[in-house]
Amino acid sequence: MSPRQSPTRTRATAKSMAAQQREISVSEFFTKNRHLLGFDSPTKALLTTIKEAVDNSLDACEEAGILPTLEVEIQAVSDQRYRVIVTDNGPGIVKKQVPRIFGKLLYGSKFHRLRQSRGQQGIGISAAGMYGQLTTAKPIVIESRISRRKPAHRYELVIDTLKNEPVIKKDLEVEWEAAHGTRVEIELEGSYKRGRHGVGTYLRQTALANPHVEIRFLGPNEEEPVVHKRATQELPIEALEIKPHPYGVEVGLLMRMLKHTRARRLSSFFRTEFSRVGPTVAKRLIEGAGLPLTASPRRVSAERAEQLIEQIKEARIPAPPTNCLSPIGEERILASLGEQIDADFYAALSRPPSVYRGNPFQVEVGLAFGGEMAADDLIALYRFANRVPLLYQQGACALTRSVLGTNWKAYGLQQGRGALPAGPMILMVHIASVWVPFTSESKEAVAGYDEILRELRLAFQGIGRKLSTHIRHERKRRDADRKHAYIEKYIPHIGIALKEILELSDRQEKQVVDTLSGTLARSRKM
Amino acid sequence: MSPRQSPTRTRATAKSMAAQQREISVSEFFTKNRHLLGFDSPTKALLTTIKEAVDNSLDACEEAGILPTLEVEIQAVSDQRYRVIVTDNGPGIVKKQVPRIFGKLLYGSKFHRLRQSRGQQGIGISAAGMYGQLTTAKPIVIESRISRRKPAHRYELVIDTLKNEPVIKKDLEVEWEAAHGTRVEIELEGSYKRGRHGVGTYLRQTALANPHVEIRFLGPNEEEPVVHKRATQELPIEALEIKPHPYGVEVGLLMRMLKHTRARRLSSFFRTEFSRVGPTVAKRLIEGAGLPLTASPRRVSAERAEQLIEQIKEARIPAPPTNCLSPIGEERILASLGEQIDADFYAALSRPPSVYRGNPFQVEVGLAFGGEMAADDLIALYRFANRVPLLYQQGACALTRSVLGTNWKAYGLQQGRGALPAGPMILMVHIASVWVPFTSESKEAVAGYDEILRELRLAFQGIGRKLSTHIRHERKRRDADRKHAYIEKYIPHIGIALKEILELSDRQEKQVVDTLSGTLARSRKM
Repeated sequence: MSPRQSPTRTRATAKSMAAQQREISVSEFFTKNRHLLGFDSPTKALLTTIKEAVDNSLDACEEAGILPTLEVEIQAVSDQRYRVIVTDNGPGIVKKQVPRIFGKLLYGSKFHRLRQSRGQQGIGISAAGMYGQLTTAKPIVIESRISRRKPAHRYELVIDTLKNEPVIKKDLEVEWEAAHGTRVEIELEGSYKRGRHGVGTYLRQTALANPHVEIRFLGPNEEEPVVHKRATQELPIEALEIKPHPYGVEVGLLMRMLKHTRARRLSSFFRTEFSRVGPTVAKRLIEGAGLPLTASPRRVSAERAEQLIEQIKEARIPAPPTNCLSPIGEERILASLGEQIDADFYAALSRPPSVYRGNPFQVEVGLAFGGEMAADDLIALYRFANRVPLLYQQGACALTRSVLGTNWKAYGLQQGRGALPAGPMILMVHIASVWVPFTSESKEAVAGYDEILRELRLAFQGIGRKLSTHIRHERKRRDADRKHAYIEKYIPHIGIALKEILELSDRQEKQVVDTLSGTLARSRKM
Repeated sequence: MSPRQSPTRTRATAKSMAAQQREISVSEFFTKNRHLLGFDSPTKALLTTIKEAVDNSLDACEEAGILPTLEVEIQAVSDQRYRVIVTDNGPGIVKKQVPRIFGKLLYGSKFHRLRQSRGQQGIGISAAGMYGQLTTAKPIVIESRISRRKPAHRYELVIDTLKNEPVIKKDLEVEWEAAHGTRVEIELEGSYKRGRHGVGTYLRQTALANPHVEIRFLGPNEEEPVVHKRATQELPIEALEIKPHPYGVEVGLLMRMLKHTRARRLSSFFRTEFSRVGPTVAKRLIEGAGLPLTASPRRVSAERAEQLIEQIKEARIPAPPTNCLSPIGEERILASLGEQIDADFYAALSRPPSVYRGNPFQVEVGLAFGGEMAADDLIALYRFANRVPLLYQQGACALTRSVLGTNWKAYGLQQGRGALPAGPMILMVHIASVWVPFTSESKEAVAGYDEILRELRLAFQGIGRKLSTHIRHERKRRDADRKHAYIEKYIPHIGIALKEILELSDRQEKQVVDTLSGTLARSRKM
C-alpha cells in the first residue's frame, strides 16, 4: 500500500472532508430526487398530485366504512400552472394531525400496520404539497370536518424542507355543509394532457378497480364534470390488521422486536407479537434455541436470536392470515369490465392468497375480448396495485414482465418475441398486498420478487386457458357458419339439378329444398 | 355529498385514525423498502455492499489526490453468509465522523455539493451496514487512520433503526501499517455468483472506467487475488464544486435560498449564491422584478420571488461551468478498451458538456468491434454513471433505451425492432454529472430527462458513423480480397490457355503469369 500523492495538486484531507459532512433532511433529499416521487415531468406531476389525494380519500372512506364520493377538480391558473382540488365525504382528519400529515414527509398511519391500503409510505400527499410549494411558492390548503358537533377547520401549510417540519401559515374555522369530509387544494406547475397517461384515464381505471366509488371529475376549462357512477353499493371486504409472520422476520428485526416488546416472557412474546404462533409452536422455537420459556425477551443475545431464526426456518408454521387483504373478486371484476368495456367475452381469475417475505399478497386478472376493439393492435394492459391504477413505468414493472413472459400464442393470440400479445383485448392485472414492493417511492411499478412472479404466471396461464377455450369455440363456430353458408348457397342449385334429373314438379323441388334447409338448420343447433 | 354508512360494520373514525399516525424513521422506511437500495436479492445485496464501499473509497482517494489502491475481499462464512472487507489507501476518516457516516442514513458530504462524485445521497454505505445488521445481527466494523501522527481507530457500530442514529458497540485503537487509509467490514446474508451481475464483472468494469485505479480482488475460497493493474499513473481531472445555476432554481428553492443566505443585499445574493451571475445580470434580474438592488434577501415576498424566477427564465445566462465534471476522455476510453478487450476496431466519443435542470452533465461512449467476439449475439452494453458500472435494471435505464432507439442498421449492424443490435461489439456509455438522476436510491438506472436523452442520441449517432466507416471499409477490403483471390486462382489457367492459343514457350508462359500476378499485387496496394 504505497499512496502516491500527485505533486501539483493540493486536495482535500480527512479533516477538510470531515467539515463537509452534514445531515440531509428527507425533504431536501426528495426535493432533489423528485423523480423518485413521480414529479419528474409537468404532466406526471399533475397526475401524481391527484393520485396521492385520491388514494388518501379512498383509504380514509373505506377505513371509516363510508361509500366514497369524490370530487376532483383541476383549475387552469395559467398554461403551466394548475390548481388541484380533491374533496371527499370521508371521516375527516383530527385538527392537530393535519399539519404533520400534510407538511412532513415520512409521517402516517399506514406504514407500521400490516393491512392492505393504497397509501403505505407516509410520503405521497406531503410530497405533492412540497412540489407545489417548490414550483409556485403557494401553501397546501386543507379543509376538514370530523362531525356535525365540530366546526370545519382550514389550514394553509408549507414544509420547512431543511427540517422536514410543517409551518402553519393560516389556521381558521370555515363553513362546511356536510357532517364530515376533507378537501385538499394544491397549486403546482404542471401540464394537463389527455390520453394514456392522463388524469381521465387514471380516474376511469380507478372506477374500474373500485366499483363502489363515485367520482366527479371537472377538468380545466370544462363546463360539465365527467361522472363515474358507483356500480355497487357494497363496500369492499374490510382488510384487517395482522401481526408479522415469523417467516418474514430476520435476525436484526427480531432483535429490535425483542428489545421493544411489552411481553415479559419469551413465550408470550412469540404468541402476542406474531401471526400464527400458538403455545406449541412458541415452545418448540424457544426450547429449540436452548432458551427457557420464561426468559426475558430483552436479555436474548444476538447469538440466541440467530438460533431462534434458525428454529423459525425449520419450523412448519401455517401461512399468515389473509383477512388483511381485500381483493376485488372475480365477480366484481367481470361486472366492472362488462360495465366499462364493450366486448364479446369476459373472464376473471383471482388466485388464492400467497406470501412473499412474510407479506400476504394476492393476484387477480381479468380480460375483455373482441367486440369493437382493433384486432391488429397490441393488447391494452391495465395494471393495478391495491386497487390503484399504475400508468407509468410499464416496462419496469413485474406485472408487465410477467405478461411478456407468458406464451399467449398457446392461447390463440399473436405475439412477437418479448412483446405484448396482439389482439382485440384489454387485460387487467391486480396485486393486493399488505406491502406492495414498488420499485420506487412514486409507486409506479412493482418489483419482481420470485413468489409474486410465480403467482402472476399461474394467473395468466389460468385466464389464458379460459381465453383459449373461447377463441377455439369462436373459431369452430365461425368455421361451421362458413360451411353452412356454403351449403345453404348450393341447396337451391341442388333442387334445380334434382328437378331436371328426376323430372320433379315445382312443388317437389320446393319440398326437397325445404327438407335440405331444415336438416341444415337442425345440424346447426347441435 | 351524502355519506353512506354501512350499517353492519363499526369502522374507524377520525379520532381512532389520528391515534395511529406516527413518524416513520428513514431507517425503518428503507428496512422495509430494501429493494429501493439494491438489497432485494442475496446476490444483489452482496454486490451492492461492495459497490457502496468501493464508491466511497474511490471518491475519498480522488478528493485527496491519491491514486487509489483497493483490496476487496469476500470471505464465505457459510453458504448464505459472507464477510465483505474493503481496504483503501485513502485519506482516512476523522474519528468523530465515523459513527454518523456509517451508522446513519442520509448523512454525508456529497449531497449538498455540486460536483461529480460516485456517492451523492448519503445512504449507501450505512444502508449496507444496516442490511448486514438486519440479516446477521453483526455490527459494521470500520478501521481508519488519517496520518502517521495519529493511531488508527476501530469502531464497531449498529444503527438504531427507530431513531436512525448510530450505536457504538466498540471503540478502540488498532495497529495500521500505512500512514492513512480505511477498512470497512460488513457481514451479511448474500449469495456469491459469477457472471454478468457478479462482483468480478463489476470490478472489471470499474477498472475499465477508472484506469487510474488498482484493485486486488480475493473471492470466497480463492487462493490468489485477481489483480486489475493501474493503466495510468495520472489521476482524473479534479471535479470542482460549483454554485447552482439560476436555470435550475424554482421559486420554492429561491425562497429558501433568500431566507438562508448570508448576503445582505439582493445584488450580492445573486452574485455569490449562483453560477454565471455577474453584476450586470444581477442588476437586470432584480430591477426587472421591480426590486431595489439593495433590498434585503430575507424580505423578498413570494410574489416578488416569482417575478425574479420570470426574469431568470427570460434572461440569457451563460451555461454553468463544466469544471465540476470529470469525464474519462476519449483517449483513456480507447486505451482502456484496448487494454481489456481484444478487438479489430476501437472508437470513442465524448460529447461536450450540457445541462439538465441546471445540472451540468456529459455523455461519453466507446466501442470495441470485431476480433474474437461472437458475430451473432446481441452486443454487450456496459453502462456507467460517474465512472461506476451499472449492472442491474438495464431495461429501465435511459442509457439502454437510447441504444434501443438508435437505428444501428444504418451503421452496418443487425437490429431487431426494439432490441439491442447484434454483432461482435462491446458498447460502453458513460454519463458524468454533478447529480445523476437515478430511478431509485439503489442507483442502478438513469432517469430519462429530455436533455440527457438528446445528448445520448447524438453520442450514439456520432460513434455509429465511426463504426459504419470501419464496417464499410472492412467490407470493401473483404470484397476486394475475395475478388483478388479469385483472379489469382485463374492466372495460371490463363497462362496455360494463352500458351496453347499463341503457342508460347514455357518461359513466355511464366512471364505472362508473373506479369499478371505483379499487376494484381500492385492493384491491391492501391
